[in-house]
Amino acid sequence: MLDYAGLEALAAVLREGSFERAARRLHVTPSAVSQRIKQLEERAGQVLVQRGSPCTGTDAGRRLWLHLEQVRLLENELRRAHPDLLAGSDAPAPTLRLAVNADSLATWFMDAMADFTAGGNELLDLRIDDQDHTGERLRRGEVIAAVTASAAAIAGCNTWPLGHMRYVAAASPAFAARHFADGVTAAALARTPVMVYDAKDRLIDRWLQAHGLATRAHAPRHLLPSEFGYVRACEVGMGWGMHPAALIAGQLARGTLVPLLDGAGLDVPLYWAHPRNAQQSLARLTQCVMAAARHWLDAP
Amino acid sequence: MLDYAGLEALAAVLREGSFERAARRLHVTPSAVSQRIKQLEERAGQVLVQRGSPCTGTDAGRRLWLHLEQVRLLENELRRAHPDLLAGSDAPAPTLRLAVNADSLATWFMDAMADFTAGGNELLDLRIDDQDHTGERLRRGEVIAAVTASAAAIAGCNTWPLGHMRYVAAASPAFAARHFADGVTAAALARTPVMVYDAKDRLIDRWLQAHGLATRAHAPRHLLPSEFGYVRACEVGMGWGMHPAALIAGQLARGTLVPLLDGAGLDVPLYWAHPRNAQQSLARLTQCVMAAARHWLDAP
Repeated sequence: MLDYAGLEALAAVLREGSFERAARRLHVTPSAVSQRIKQLEERAGQVLVQRGSPCTGTDAGRRLWLHLEQVRLLENELRRAHPDLLAGSDAPAPTLRLAVNADSLATWFMDAMADFTAGGNELLDLRIDDQDHTGERLRRGEVIAAVTASAAAIAGCNTWPLGHMRYVAAASPAFAARHFADGVTAAALARTPVMVYDAKDRLIDRWLQAHGLATRAHAPRHLLPSEFGYVRACEVGMGWGMHPAALIAGQLARGTLVPLLDGAGLDVPLYWAHPRNAQQSLARLTQCVMAAARHWLDAP
Repeated sequence: MLDYAGLEALAAVLREGSFERAARRLHVTPSAVSQRIKQLEERAGQVLVQRGSPCTGTDAGRRLWLHLEQVRLLENELRRAHPDLLAGSDAPAPTLRLAVNADSLATWFMDAMADFTAGGNELLDLRIDDQDHTGERLRRGEVIAAVTASAAAIAGCNTWPLGHMRYVAAASPAFAARHFADGVTAAALARTPVMVYDAKDRLIDRWLQAHGLATRAHAPRHLLPSEFGYVRACEVGMGWGMHPAALIAGQLARGTLVPLLDGAGLDVPLYWAHPRNAQQSLARLTQCVMAAARHWLDAP
């Protein structure tokens, strides 16, 4: 049997990022936390925590953390199914770590979270990342489920198609008039500032390529890793950008943003993936996710 | 004189995160980029790039990158002041890397950015971090200016007080009725889910302490590192949270969020800091920042 007191210390350190904060949370001294981790590492025969600021988990450390959370989900189900059985003991609600792309979170995924949290005591810990990278987090054992842009199978996981998220290129009317007076051409785009969500964002390039507008020249880029700030920055005229159509419906209706190229968009397929050995909580979350996706996304 | 072709390769690698993407951007081969970096590292007598996925800069690497960007700002000013002098050569617009807390970005800082980008060709690269950590990014040479929560002097930098950002604890009316029927007490708070922006977020603890509501027990926490998602999650009833009053003015007016404890809030002072050897661009940005802060924040 694994050393679960040690695993709890490991989880607290990886979650809080430091031995001191983990100790406060567990109501023990930092040296007690340090000792438990050392014992766990000795038994595992390898390093589990990369000491630093913040402390992070090695591959093995992350796997053990995820295992502990799966056990906590099972315990939670037991407690809820048999409240009398464990009435004497108490446990904090379990947490599901999820990797979700920012645009899903800003649109359809909120419904899934509201639904899920209303129906149980489980807590959510959201990791926001590019949809091309969320699957990697699942693969590395950083999260227990993910919204991804790839249908590629992940070892030990099931994958469900969620539908397509439609993106539209848009800018403020004044910005469009100033920079695209002669049309949305490759030449105009090459010298017009574009808003980029982060360095990993390839949606812009894919849209340019899809419409034959890609050039060797790189357009000036503002980097703004905030889905809310990104839309606002386009509204105030800092640059043009690629937006989820569902997110800017209000801006398009009010006219604070206008579509470029007559709204010729880009459809990005999305998938939901989690380990096959799913606990009931995870199965319930999947139902909430599928329901919200059916409502918001175009059919797969 | 430093090797500026080498520095351009270094900047491209640190900005893009990989030798391959840097090479594409510079229109050279990855091995050419690699060679330039190696030469630069030999001359500097130390490692400048930590190879990995993504590649990141060592302390020395980040300092050299920031130096290059300061030189680019100077060049840009020269070009704008004397367009004839350098008519034959061309250069991309310079980028100012800034560290800003998410709540500033979601409220008053957008005005400063809109103002600044409307008045020049400079590009912005925003790094979003907790206001207690943005100063550290400035200290480490990761950014050229920052909005911070600390008046502490940063070596070589000037610091300006910006005013106070007011935070209000709020939840959806249904959530407040369900969890705080007997009042917002320490006991009720200890068992009620709270939305936390990220593990570094200490605003909640400060508010609890300020109102004598802190307990040893840790309330269940949902982690959601998105300023937009955070407000929405409170509206849909996932938890209560601490919000910038300016950000949720609409929600409070519409009644989708209600203040807890009669709106007893928390005032967080904010500061603006950048190196003393400021280029004109940076001085202009500071003017835009001070103007937006005067409009939005409570007087310091």
